[in-house]
Amino acid sequence: MNFTKVLQNIGKHISLTQEEEEYFTRSLQVKTIKKGDLVLSEGQHCQYIDFVNAGILRAYHLTPRGKESTLMFAMPDWWITDMASFVKGAPALINIEAVESGEILRLSKPDMDLLLEEVPKFEKCFRVLFQNAYIREQVRSIENLTLSAEQRYDRFIGKYPKLCSKITQKQIASYLGITPEFLSSIRAQRK
Amino acid sequence: MNFTKVLQNIGKHISLTQEEEEYFTRSLQVKTIKKGDLVLSEGQHCQYIDFVNAGILRAYHLTPRGKESTLMFAMPDWWITDMASFVKGAPALINIEAVESGEILRLSKPDMDLLLEEVPKFEKCFRVLFQNAYIREQVRSIENLTLSAEQRYDRFIGKYPKLCSKITQKQIASYLGITPEFLSSIRAQRK
Repeated sequence: MNFTKVLQNIGKHISLTQEEEEYFTRSLQVKTIKKGDLVLSEGQHCQYIDFVNAGILRAYHLTPRGKESTLMFAMPDWWITDMASFVKGAPALINIEAVESGEILRLSKPDMDLLLEEVPKFEKCFRVLFQNAYIREQVRSIENLTLSAEQRYDRFIGKYPKLCSKITQKQIASYLGITPEFLSSIRAQRK
Repeated sequence: MNFTKVLQNIGKHISLTQEEEEYFTRSLQVKTIKKGDLVLSEGQHCQYIDFVNAGILRAYHLTPRGKESTLMFAMPDWWITDMASFVKGAPALINIEAVESGEILRLSKPDMDLLLEEVPKFEKCFRVLFQNAYIREQVRSIENLTLSAEQRYDRFIGKYPKLCSKITQKQIASYLGITPEFLSSIRAQRK
């Protein structure tokens, strides 16, 4: 099992002793994911915060009319969860599916609580991760209010050039909140 | 100066010794706010995370067409900031104004960094605050996709009954993303 990536991710925020690294990696559950797998379904209790070791996950919500709305993609080195469900046990509001096969490392809520108790320096690590997640959501809300679909598309491909080649146009359109047809017309203008 | 409320707020997450309480409250800057005051303007560097001791703050964004869009209200016992600007020094994307006079307690970024270094148990406190802020944003994004304006209005008044009597209909409408006229028609149906 390969924990290099997750240890590097954590190492950006805190320094761990070998013992602490071992304690942490023993807390993780390794799960192979295949394209199309749902790792979380709406209404379930979300029991894990997931680190993407390889592959790509997509969080989406089905509107009452059955339209998919993509909330985020998680590439290798990203964390993803339904935070309200994970923390408070509320029914999940999102689905998380694998859009590319790979492997995730899962930290359950009881294991996270134990980790924070046994190795309190992880508080800093999660403080920074959640701070960054909040920044991402705050900025995205404002961009959705402010920028045109064209500007949001340009910003998306600028931020995540690698991702764009691995997901479908339909998925990009549902992240931008536009129809695939409208996305095609934007792409045609860019050529 | 009255630090009871902020110490109770912190006390929900961590226990402080008297010495730590004193260190923390010495880090705070007290500012009186008057209705209409802007405590942060778009484009500025947001230097503080603010705790509302009394009064009400409103964070809003001006769209390029000059429309105000309210992102959040902060009542007594709430924290508010433009997180990207506060953490990364980016120009603020939001304005924060006082919609009711009162008092805020401000923690600057250098003082927060020092506090986290000197009293590391504050990491837990901010981890939980940022986790909750992320939950609020994640849930709001999904509600905006899923619920009708009527449902969002009902949820808003259900969640924040005290707030509704203290802010204008225009401010509520701009939080819900609808016109004041549409809000009037919803309210008329509810009578």
